[in-house]
Amino acid sequence: MADLTRARAEAHDNADPLRALRGRFVLEGEGDNRIYLDGNSLGRLPREAASRLAERTAEWGERLVTGWPDWIELPTRVGDLLAEGVLGARPGEVLVCDSTTVNLYKLAHAALAARPDRRAVVADPDDFPTDRYVLEGVCAARGVELRWEAPGGPIASDVALVALSHVSYRSGALADMAAITEAAHRSGALALWDVSHSAGAVPVELEATGADLAVGCTYKYLNAGPGSPAFLYVRSPLLEELRSPIQGWFGRRDQFRMGPRYEPADGIERFHAGTPSILGLAAVEAGVALVAEAGIERLREKSVALTELIVDLHDARLAPLGFELGTPRDPTRRGSHVALRHADAWRITRALIERARVIPDFRGPDSVRLGVPPLYTRFVDVWDAVDRLARLLEAGEHLEFGAELSRVT
Amino acid sequence: MADLTRARAEAHDNADPLRALRGRFVLEGEGDNRIYLDGNSLGRLPREAASRLAERTAEWGERLVTGWPDWIELPTRVGDLLAEGVLGARPGEVLVCDSTTVNLYKLAHAALAARPDRRAVVADPDDFPTDRYVLEGVCAARGVELRWEAPGGPIASDVALVALSHVSYRSGALADMAAITEAAHRSGALALWDVSHSAGAVPVELEATGADLAVGCTYKYLNAGPGSPAFLYVRSPLLEELRSPIQGWFGRRDQFRMGPRYEPADGIERFHAGTPSILGLAAVEAGVALVAEAGIERLREKSVALTELIVDLHDARLAPLGFELGTPRDPTRRGSHVALRHADAWRITRALIERARVIPDFRGPDSVRLGVPPLYTRFVDVWDAVDRLARLLEAGEHLEFGAELSRVT
Repeated sequence: MADLTRARAEAHDNADPLRALRGRFVLEGEGDNRIYLDGNSLGRLPREAASRLAERTAEWGERLVTGWPDWIELPTRVGDLLAEGVLGARPGEVLVCDSTTVNLYKLAHAALAARPDRRAVVADPDDFPTDRYVLEGVCAARGVELRWEAPGGPIASDVALVALSHVSYRSGALADMAAITEAAHRSGALALWDVSHSAGAVPVELEATGADLAVGCTYKYLNAGPGSPAFLYVRSPLLEELRSPIQGWFGRRDQFRMGPRYEPADGIERFHAGTPSILGLAAVEAGVALVAEAGIERLREKSVALTELIVDLHDARLAPLGFELGTPRDPTRRGSHVALRHADAWRITRALIERARVIPDFRGPDSVRLGVPPLYTRFVDVWDAVDRLARLLEAGEHLEFGAELSRVT
Repeated sequence: MADLTRARAEAHDNADPLRALRGRFVLEGEGDNRIYLDGNSLGRLPREAASRLAERTAEWGERLVTGWPDWIELPTRVGDLLAEGVLGARPGEVLVCDSTTVNLYKLAHAALAARPDRRAVVADPDDFPTDRYVLEGVCAARGVELRWEAPGGPIASDVALVALSHVSYRSGALADMAAITEAAHRSGALALWDVSHSAGAVPVELEATGADLAVGCTYKYLNAGPGSPAFLYVRSPLLEELRSPIQGWFGRRDQFRMGPRYEPADGIERFHAGTPSILGLAAVEAGVALVAEAGIERLREKSVALTELIVDLHDARLAPLGFELGTPRDPTRRGSHVALRHADAWRITRALIERARVIPDFRGPDSVRLGVPPLYTRFVDVWDAVDRLARLLEAGEHLEFGAELSRVT
């Protein structure tokens, strides 16, 4: 059994090679002892993102339309940074644009159009809502069967596309990208990964695993702000074959010739739709650069140690209070958040926020999610949060809150 | 003939009731005599937009995920401001989200799905590229015929949708929204308007004209920055009938219940896809508020006077140099930019920018576009720009530039 004292957690922080990076984030609001464990939903504000946003805003004001020749390269330039520093992909394979939802829609349609003889999609019934809803709509529109199957099984020979998340938003389970992609390929299907809950915290080896397609958001572990532009990845050999269903002018070859009919651009730009958000890209660039600077292997190492501490503290202090671990115990099979299951999870989440100043989030039906983005989460944050959680349960404070769900996020 | 002296232009500026609003914009970069006449492509930076962006960025840093209960209302709240102050629509009919391209895609698909027995779309062969490309893709996907017809003719009885721009991006011609919508309705078709080139400069009477659907961008006359979020409009009685093809979680009823299958939200939110850009919305809010404060009727009045001055100066000074007016002479039939046609338009545009410090833009095959957003364009700006243009032509300076197109924007 590990040493579970607070002093030990402090010692971990003192030895943390990423320790200095916490100071690169805005930490206002922490003065009153708030502990933020929801960076897996919305990451913190990097100081560099705030300054890049202000600089780009000033650039808009000064350069006006003459800024475009530089700005227009940002979606692919920041995409290349993401490819190399975060996603294990090659230059020219990643584009920063639109939302995860719209990107998933584009790639799912493109994949099905490229495999017209196959009439089924396999998706995870526990996947993040927008993934499920988008696939449902795409399959209905194309008259393709949508099969809800837990990840990891064999793939039938009529399947065009296997689509799932790398890290489960609810349980925090980390899927075996290489094995599942290989199973898809064995049956001739394409594999599409949503890496929203892994990019920036877990190595995402798109090239090494053979992944065909991927989408993801930048406002979680990449810290680019609420509703920041998302990204998409298409493996180079597929680029020529795949076309976006949304034929926008930014995806057209020789866009500014404004020619008569649509022809897709040669590269990853063909998956552009409309005008990209230049201010949004400024924050993405800053957020991605910070993750790349830290190094994804070092981030992963710290993330595993942080989730391991939650698991150990759960066993010692929370299990006796009726909690059950909702996340795999094997650290190689989990991402950077941990789900603590409890019949009163909703009231406990509210009490944690309102009484204990710990900010986790709730995921139905019964999980309190603790996210520990390794760039800025300290071991003492984890220790203190679990300590406050245990004391709150022991005092029965959560019972003062209604059990009825009544919330926005 | 009007008095075309510079003194007269100055007198117009001195009497301009909107004069003080120019100071609400960042004017850096003007010290060296630059004249910006491309606000119809990318509007200037309102000082209020810069401060709102900085405030929202700080709010992200401080409130983190707890900001969402407030932020989540922005797309409809700013949509309502747009509806009332700019678009002549009703609360609950406008949503700020995604890009114009993606919004057009959503509404065109929704309209065709709602009129399955009609097998054609009518579109303008001179419409903005992204409109033409998107409609081409949507029609191909649905097996519907796309008919390229100049606006204004009768609509056949097999037409599901008439889609066109309110103001033509190239010629600046203003379409008769009421008459064309009525013609569409007479045949049982829906009318979808792209108001990107009119919103903020020309009254857009969506309710009064009976328009069914509309999309538009916010980075032109609404001054919300490069690639800022766009908007869409759906007439209330159609809301229940129309569904987005992109079934994202933000468009789902009871989004945060994260239920099993997709069900569209009741209101305009059903046309949401993914997570909206909260920083982008901050700038849209500021830009829209400024237009609403000025008042669309006053803006239109000044805009007409500014384009009228271009027409008069064209006749007096540019026609003798080989120019031809590419924009309707009837002020009730044009928007807030004027196209000056010339065989050497491309070289003239380059010379204007690089030698004369006048920033217009070029639109193929032969137009120099001068945009005069009434919020910040002065009558002397127009006078000086045409004066510099005439002198440049007289001196033959444009002949020093290559005729070969080689450009980004």
